[in-house]
Amino acid sequence: MSSALITDLYELTMAQSLVEHNKTGRAVFSVTVRSLPQERNFLVSCGLESVIHEVLAFRFSHANIAYLQSQERFSESFLDWLCAFRFTGDIIAVPEGRIVFENEPLVRIEGSLPEIQILETIVLNLIHHQTTIASKTARMTITAGSIPLIDFGLRRAHGTDGGVLASRAACIAGCTGTSNLEAGQRFKIPISGTMAHSYILVFNSEKEAFRSYIKTFPKDPVLLIDTYDTLTGAETAAKLAQEGLPVSGVRIDSGDISSIVPAVRNILDSYGLQHIKIIVSGGVDEHDIRHWSREGIPIDAYGVGTKMLTSSDIPYLDMTYKLVEYENIPRYKTSTGKVSIPGRRDIYRHYTGGIMDYDEIAATGIDCKGEKLNEYIVKEGIQITPSPSFEEIRERFRQDANRLPPGIRSLETKRYQINIR
Amino acid sequence: MSSALITDLYELTMAQSLVEHNKTGRAVFSVTVRSLPQERNFLVSCGLESVIHEVLAFRFSHANIAYLQSQERFSESFLDWLCAFRFTGDIIAVPEGRIVFENEPLVRIEGSLPEIQILETIVLNLIHHQTTIASKTARMTITAGSIPLIDFGLRRAHGTDGGVLASRAACIAGCTGTSNLEAGQRFKIPISGTMAHSYILVFNSEKEAFRSYIKTFPKDPVLLIDTYDTLTGAETAAKLAQEGLPVSGVRIDSGDISSIVPAVRNILDSYGLQHIKIIVSGGVDEHDIRHWSREGIPIDAYGVGTKMLTSSDIPYLDMTYKLVEYENIPRYKTSTGKVSIPGRRDIYRHYTGGIMDYDEIAATGIDCKGEKLNEYIVKEGIQITPSPSFEEIRERFRQDANRLPPGIRSLETKRYQINIR
Repeated sequence: MSSALITDLYELTMAQSLVEHNKTGRAVFSVTVRSLPQERNFLVSCGLESVIHEVLAFRFSHANIAYLQSQERFSESFLDWLCAFRFTGDIIAVPEGRIVFENEPLVRIEGSLPEIQILETIVLNLIHHQTTIASKTARMTITAGSIPLIDFGLRRAHGTDGGVLASRAACIAGCTGTSNLEAGQRFKIPISGTMAHSYILVFNSEKEAFRSYIKTFPKDPVLLIDTYDTLTGAETAAKLAQEGLPVSGVRIDSGDISSIVPAVRNILDSYGLQHIKIIVSGGVDEHDIRHWSREGIPIDAYGVGTKMLTSSDIPYLDMTYKLVEYENIPRYKTSTGKVSIPGRRDIYRHYTGGIMDYDEIAATGIDCKGEKLNEYIVKEGIQITPSPSFEEIRERFRQDANRLPPGIRSLETKRYQINIR
Repeated sequence: MSSALITDLYELTMAQSLVEHNKTGRAVFSVTVRSLPQERNFLVSCGLESVIHEVLAFRFSHANIAYLQSQERFSESFLDWLCAFRFTGDIIAVPEGRIVFENEPLVRIEGSLPEIQILETIVLNLIHHQTTIASKTARMTITAGSIPLIDFGLRRAHGTDGGVLASRAACIAGCTGTSNLEAGQRFKIPISGTMAHSYILVFNSEKEAFRSYIKTFPKDPVLLIDTYDTLTGAETAAKLAQEGLPVSGVRIDSGDISSIVPAVRNILDSYGLQHIKIIVSGGVDEHDIRHWSREGIPIDAYGVGTKMLTSSDIPYLDMTYKLVEYENIPRYKTSTGKVSIPGRRDIYRHYTGGIMDYDEIAATGIDCKGEKLNEYIVKEGIQITPSPSFEEIRERFRQDANRLPPGIRSLETKRYQINIR
């Protein structure tokens, strides 16, 4: 999938210097989010499957080596070292779809120092991006409750592979389908779609456009009714349904949703079309969803895109890949403000009455009660825990979402209790 | 590079219905940003090279077709149509690196309607992402003036290919180098890097770490001095330089930059080391740069990452791919709030004393004076304007940045004059 050059120069310069000075002892790096932004009470772990795939496949091709050689920075012996590179270390991680918090070691990588140093950039890139998107999505799907969300965001996601992995993250965190065909194919996610305004605009009338679309796709067509006048569009859709044509839903992509949706619902109901669903799209976020939900606006589904797949309010997390131990000695820096928790750590979760109560981040080896969240995935370069199915990951998120304390589920800033042992 | 399934389902369902109803006449779609957010006075066009590459290579593989067939939505004749798909239309666009504004047609695609409908998602994805990142970067590089910015953002960019294209966009919009090796190789961008805290932490002392790194890379080493105590780190670096070891710069990644950088400068200068540069990194954005610049903090270069490569304040633009003409008739929707400018349009720029004065967005065919910004790139499926070199694109941005009016260059919200004819 990727090239081993998807990395920062300094990973390789450090590695050469570490090899040269025999700093090749066993090291432990930990991926954590140091602090949560105000707008996030929790995170959803995502990206591990990509990490396993990329790390186990991490190889420097001859073209990569030739490029590095051309930079006149690297020794011949180090280029040979890169040529022979295979990951032979361990990966201990929280499975995808789990709800997690600040300072929790989402991924721990152990192995010879230079070997795991050079994986920093690719591991962070994949876990950071996908965890950011899944965590944003979870706020939206949890706020929407039983109303389904469908991912329409590929066009505004950052990049094409980024968009496909973002759609996957969104569907892990509760979206029920995606418009993204590549994600549909690759991860077996249900695909979904309606029509664009451009389709309506090339027919002589909205009615002719609707009729033509239904003729091509008589199974479950959803009609976009806001090209000209939304209420007229709703009347037109209703009349076609009354003629006996199949209309399963209408989509509204603009206007004042709080007033237009009830009006459209009234029109449809006045024709006895209570079964026709109303789908709302157009810049929807969790605050809109909460607002419309509290107002009781009769929305049956959301098409969500831009704000979800870019995590628009918080497009990055304070996630780092930190050396926490070298040759069995805990390591940490002391510079201002950015102190990390040294040493190998595991996460234990405690519940009360089926609801999450507190987590412990405990030094590995301490005997803790509670549910252990992280587990060995890769041992000595070999995957020992099989990858779960996409459906299992989705189910894991659903279970965790149901066990969240109400305060943490809400959109107000609340902090879950984390004890460090 | 990408799969033809990097698209939304509705592009293909609409295309099938359009083909079935003989709506295959000549259509024109226009990519524009409808309005600029408060935090952007201008945009930097970016992503065209990816679009040309992807559109001209857009093919449905047998695996793609088999997946679509398995969805039981598409007719056999339409799947045959997809199998035979080749882009045979025209692309008229603003070259990369130009400064552009709201409502300006960054890319215009003309061709048979279903053929260009199905390109919507991939075209928007590529232009939107790269223009978003280039536009954010330009604010930072213009504010920094003659102080160089180096891209360190790959680890927090969204995805791997997204990260590589984001690094390219950042270097178009004024970054002088990148830590991203893949971007360095693919686009021949100068690569740059220093060291991480993890490197320092595995040696017995900071001094030993510095000495070891310099031994491996005696050419231009930059030492990270904030692992323990920044001022002590500066003293240590200074003493090594005084011993005659080569030290070209120090990097500071934490702390109160306004007070620590002058203190570090004083230490270096007190050793007669005026030539050692100070590089600042760690969550830097354009507001930090302006603040430190106004305070006269002696920073020699910035390492910038997260906020630039995610365009953190504004990670998306209101960019659309709109049908503006079909069979020579201008088309537009009338629904609330989202009105677009119909018809084929060209952009003409007017200058006064070498500074940009106003732009005209004129219906194609109107005889306008001024510099025409958009040009034919692809005609009947064949690229007729050769792709510029990366250096030419960078130079185009530099020239445009120098011609920006002072108000538009600033970080205060100002609007450039656009006339629609």
